[in-house]
Amino acid sequence: MKVGILGATGAVGQKFIRLLQNHPWFTITALGASERSAGKKYKDAVNWVEDVNLPDYIAEMIVSDCNPSSFEGVDFVFSGLDSSVATEIEGDLAKAGIPVISNAKNYRMNPTVPLLVPEVNPDHIELIKTQTFTEDGSGWIVTNPNCVAVPLSIALKPIYDTFGIEALILTTMQAISGAGYPGVASLDILGNVVPFIGGEEPKIAPETQKLLGSYSDGVITEPRYPVQATCTRVPTLNGHMASVTVKLAKELSGIEEVREAVLNFKNPIAELGLPSAPKQLIRLHDEIRYPQPRLHADQENGMQLHMGRLRKAEVFDISFVCMAHNTIRGAAGGAILNAELLVKKGYLEN
Amino acid sequence: MKVGILGATGAVGQKFIRLLQNHPWFTITALGASERSAGKKYKDAVNWVEDVNLPDYIAEMIVSDCNPSSFEGVDFVFSGLDSSVATEIEGDLAKAGIPVISNAKNYRMNPTVPLLVPEVNPDHIELIKTQTFTEDGSGWIVTNPNCVAVPLSIALKPIYDTFGIEALILTTMQAISGAGYPGVASLDILGNVVPFIGGEEPKIAPETQKLLGSYSDGVITEPRYPVQATCTRVPTLNGHMASVTVKLAKELSGIEEVREAVLNFKNPIAELGLPSAPKQLIRLHDEIRYPQPRLHADQENGMQLHMGRLRKAEVFDISFVCMAHNTIRGAAGGAILNAELLVKKGYLEN
Amino acid sequence: MKVGILGATGAVGQKFIRLLQNHPWFTITALGASERSAGKKYKDAVNWVEDVNLPDYIAEMIVSDCNPSSFEGVDFVFSGLDSSVATEIEGDLAKAGIPVISNAKNYRMNPTVPLLVPEVNPDHIELIKTQTFTEDGSGWIVTNPNCVAVPLSIALKPIYDTFGIEALILTTMQAISGAGYPGVASLDILGNVVPFIGGEEPKIAPETQKLLGSYSDGVITEPRYPVQATCTRVPTLNGHMASVTVKLAKELSGIEEVREAVLNFKNPIAELGLPSAPKQLIRLHDEIRYPQPRLHADQENGMQLHMGRLRKAEVFDISFVCMAHNTIRGAAGGAILNAELLVKKGYLEN
Amino acid sequence: MKVGILGATGAVGQKFIRLLQNHPWFTITALGASERSAGKKYKDAVNWVEDVNLPDYIAEMIVSDCNPSSFEGVDFVFSGLDSSVATEIEGDLAKAGIPVISNAKNYRMNPTVPLLVPEVNPDHIELIKTQTFTEDGSGWIVTNPNCVAVPLSIALKPIYDTFGIEALILTTMQAISGAGYPGVASLDILGNVVPFIGGEEPKIAPETQKLLGSYSDGVITEPRYPVQATCTRVPTLNGHMASVTVKLAKELSGIEEVREAVLNFKNPIAELGLPSAPKQLIRLHDEIRYPQPRLHADQENGMQLHMGRLRKAEVFDISFVCMAHNTIRGAAGGAILNAELLVKKGYLEN
Repeated sequence: MKVGILGATGAVGQKFIRLLQNHPWFTITALGASERSAGKKYKDAVNWVEDVNLPDYIAEMIVSDCNPSSFEGVDFVFSGLDSSVATEIEGDLAKAGIPVISNAKNYRMNPTVPLLVPEVNPDHIELIKTQTFTEDGSGWIVTNPNCVAVPLSIALKPIYDTFGIEALILTTMQAISGAGYPGVASLDILGNVVPFIGGEEPKIAPETQKLLGSYSDGVITEPRYPVQATCTRVPTLNGHMASVTVKLAKELSGIEEVREAVLNFKNPIAELGLPSAPKQLIRLHDEIRYPQPRLHADQENGMQLHMGRLRKAEVFDISFVCMAHNTIRGAAGGAILNAELLVKKGYLEN
Repeated sequence: MKVGILGATGAVGQKFIRLLQNHPWFTITALGASERSAGKKYKDAVNWVEDVNLPDYIAEMIVSDCNPSSFEGVDFVFSGLDSSVATEIEGDLAKAGIPVISNAKNYRMNPTVPLLVPEVNPDHIELIKTQTFTEDGSGWIVTNPNCVAVPLSIALKPIYDTFGIEALILTTMQAISGAGYPGVASLDILGNVVPFIGGEEPKIAPETQKLLGSYSDGVITEPRYPVQATCTRVPTLNGHMASVTVKLAKELSGIEEVREAVLNFKNPIAELGLPSAPKQLIRLHDEIRYPQPRLHADQENGMQLHMGRLRKAEVFDISFVCMAHNTIRGAAGGAILNAELLVKKGYLEN
Repeated sequence: MKVGILGATGAVGQKFIRLLQNHPWFTITALGASERSAGKKYKDAVNWVEDVNLPDYIAEMIVSDCNPSSFEGVDFVFSGLDSSVATEIEGDLAKAGIPVISNAKNYRMNPTVPLLVPEVNPDHIELIKTQTFTEDGSGWIVTNPNCVAVPLSIALKPIYDTFGIEALILTTMQAISGAGYPGVASLDILGNVVPFIGGEEPKIAPETQKLLGSYSDGVITEPRYPVQATCTRVPTLNGHMASVTVKLAKELSGIEEVREAVLNFKNPIAELGLPSAPKQLIRLHDEIRYPQPRLHADQENGMQLHMGRLRKAEVFDISFVCMAHNTIRGAAGGAILNAELLVKKGYLEN
Repeated sequence: MKVGILGATGAVGQKFIRLLQNHPWFTITALGASERSAGKKYKDAVNWVEDVNLPDYIAEMIVSDCNPSSFEGVDFVFSGLDSSVATEIEGDLAKAGIPVISNAKNYRMNPTVPLLVPEVNPDHIELIKTQTFTEDGSGWIVTNPNCVAVPLSIALKPIYDTFGIEALILTTMQAISGAGYPGVASLDILGNVVPFIGGEEPKIAPETQKLLGSYSDGVITEPRYPVQATCTRVPTLNGHMASVTVKLAKELSGIEEVREAVLNFKNPIAELGLPSAPKQLIRLHDEIRYPQPRLHADQENGMQLHMGRLRKAEVFDISFVCMAHNTIRGAAGGAILNAELLVKKGYLEN
């Protein structure tokens, strides 16, 4: 299938290009970026920051603008657009009949738009049918969550299903790649912690609640529980870590129950053979010093969710840490997995 | 006054030497370390890691062992001993009539030993009178808390006094200097987070509760509230940060009440003129990205407590971050301030 | 004396403010910055990145533009301007009769402008008399060198004076603060080395040669020797390190000769009592692992030059490393020392 | 083929295990370590620091000591032994008829032992025939060079062959993984540069000269040129960078000649199909900010040599930087490539 990339020169755009270079189903045929880059060869428009080589055929492609006319002929687009422009551009493409698989936040909370993590809420895909961008339903938008909501929702899913959730307190330690490029100034973060990330904390409750919501007849019914989040930036490269304490709805006899819920979680897409799906979705570490961003973020091609330090809590019921690669599982890789599920479910075709 | 240093070649010992080099009251006259170092010149026994020069007169001093006979003639000793040897050595010195101001954990929870932060619980000093190391009371031990309990207890003191505390959830981001030297291997922490620090979490509840306890007739009555702590190591040099969420005992009308309690906290030693006391004990930052270890840990000679992000919480009542220099305020500097208070209160004399 | 700061909101401007806050001779009375900042309170115009508090009286000062009329009443200005605007602004101030002590590169190689390191070439000050910005000589410009040329010229001065220099090969490892703020993106430098710094290498030969040149009758006669420099960026905060191998003009009997030349170097300003001058100009480390940026860059208030690993070389004659604080000794601190010398020599008066 | 690992729990040993886990020719059947580890399951004896999972079948293997009797049945061993014990252990195994492919330094300069980089000096293999560990030639030792000598010798090989070398000045910026685990203390290197690495500089001249030497009739004739090296440690994870300036034996008309020599270098093992050989041996970067350890050390599975900044020098003839993964290309990966060549050449058989 032919795919286009919106925001191709940005950090997320580069990650799409990297992850798609040997993809068995998808081939990049169009690269869209800002006016400043349009008309240039990609290699001249981009400041390539990935630690693999820029693929040759991408390097020589001419970057276009992000108008629908520039994406005629693609089967769908991935969007790594900045939120300042995503509402209009993504909407225009959807209206032009081009499916948009977006990493931008703009449409995430739109009640007709699936906020999708395939292993968590694959049935939410059906929301697409409620979208009205085009009369024939050919143009639509699917989004993936914020890079903290992704690991958090995967970690919480088996816990929520088994015990229910009444309250959540978490502190995150987020990697510099989450801010894009140039992003965080080195003078701000080298040997430092910054105890605030603009716009991050307010996304966590609504996005995880939409993800854990149940779908029925075109409507998501979301659980409501209070969430207190403190998001910090630390000098790690990739992998957002969260330290989480949870109040459960059911009484717990012992931590072993939670371990079993996590270990026995039935991954709903396990049998679908999606190329980007991790073999083991959740890795629950017994080693008390694990998970660690540097050791584990890249495992299973950056698509695995790592949990550790699962224990009974002195306050509320349980505590754990969870971690996933923020620009793969938490962004471009998650979007690609969304596209793969959409293909399998028949929403995307040549 | 003449002072000795126990564990003089270790990281805390080095910090004592650095902080005491121009101290108006105290002069180092004896340096004790392990058998391996005893008999050597200090400069040949130490791997000096401080970012100021090793003072010349210290460099040439001969290191002794840690037996009481090696500390005859000192007025008291500071102890930066490792906990594996502190129980015996500190006890022996106290029995020999030498006051010990210790940073080691061994005697902290002993009911006759003051666990002291001068601005938090100066009246606990009177516990000294209940000690029985010597018949005449000449030998005794005073301790300072763990490097997380120090900033946490200072931050909590005005809150506890005003509102009471019913529960506490916190996640720490601790600097590498907290593990001493060589301490944390660079391969473990460069660009990484380690979500566990051995022995750290269990100290936080008992130490902060002893600190917040009320003294009467030789007995500390401690508050009891559950604490859930997750301690992590991050690649910062100095300054332990904690992200804290608190359930208060009283209902809160608004966050402004808490701000006022913090800002109006009456520092009980403010008027004593102790050389190492910070002019401003608690700095409550309004800038949302503050405090930061790199920018603020060294302020007021590393003796200030920094708070920030004070806000109403969605779960429980309030959240904030707090941070202080872990090896100064949280270790050697705190011990020196303890000694200064003990001098002022008449417990230490030439 | 009343001083103004040009480029007051930038990284160098902030360093001027920090270093001048308790200066015995100079008081800041005017802050100039770009149009974007002019009219605002300094605290609202600046992103303060220093690890000391922004002084209160500076915080409330209104930032002006950089026109001469905004600096009426100051005795002179320090310039931390970006090179893109320094030629015109600094020239305009000089023409308006205001002395400019500049850290910008624009006038460094102008044959009438002293490129000044007080300990290296104090007699070059007399070049001021050849400047023609004003008829009465009241307006003039003095510059300090690039942050690599400063430590290199100090390290080379005793060697050049004693043995002459025929060739120089060096590799630098430069701190992130050298690029200003926001400067180096964290994604570029965390756990990385970047083996190129734009515009850096070509400055090293001409600036060090002008500094080592001899002044006579309004003309500098410069030595000429080839220099091969490779400038790299490493993840250090402050302190540019250089690894240097030198071919001397005279034959060397042994490395001890060079040690003596360095240790016996007669600092020409040692007796002048300049407030910012280091007590010991050159610290030659014997410890083979020294100097190190983290341990030594801040010593003597960041104004000391550190040398180490001085040894005979297998190729050419000698090798050593040298290091100094790049934004203090190598920028704002150097400019302040220049101003102090100019006061002492009678060039600056109330 | 069945292989054993000597020093299996150390950093190099772990890298052998990681790199061999899916190797098409070699299967690990024995793990040797110190007495302290012998008898334990590998997972209980090791502090696994690789960022991939410890393979399950290795985790459960019982670690043995390093005596020859523990390696009966293997076809050969890889050695990641510490130099303090390698002389005896490796010698004993060779005497017992077990070929040893070693990363240790002990036998590197032995005139009968090949110091081997397959792309540089494959013909040196024949030195094996001069070894006398066993009468029938069944036991022998082959070594790979130090982790700086490896990238340097590859970068120099085409230059040496085309122009000859008369002198070399270099400064290295070496990654922390080069010191093993726990290796460099984080307090020594976080935000720092250490301008000395024990034992490193003296290896560079003899090892690169032996590598560039010509083999004839059991003897290596080595070139002799002076080398002045300064080896520094920087806070990077993997990838040793060197900044090199070279005096050539032939006059150079232009830098283009050198580019061509490098680009046209005929890799002598290009056609052999060795599994661990990089497809492109030398990548000469045109982008002036490249190579960078973080972006390029892992490329081609860590087996590629990266050059950049190739230019005419003001002193001597040319300068460049070169970089390769120090624990793969410069250690375990290099040893595995050596073994693959030895298989292909018939020195190793089932």
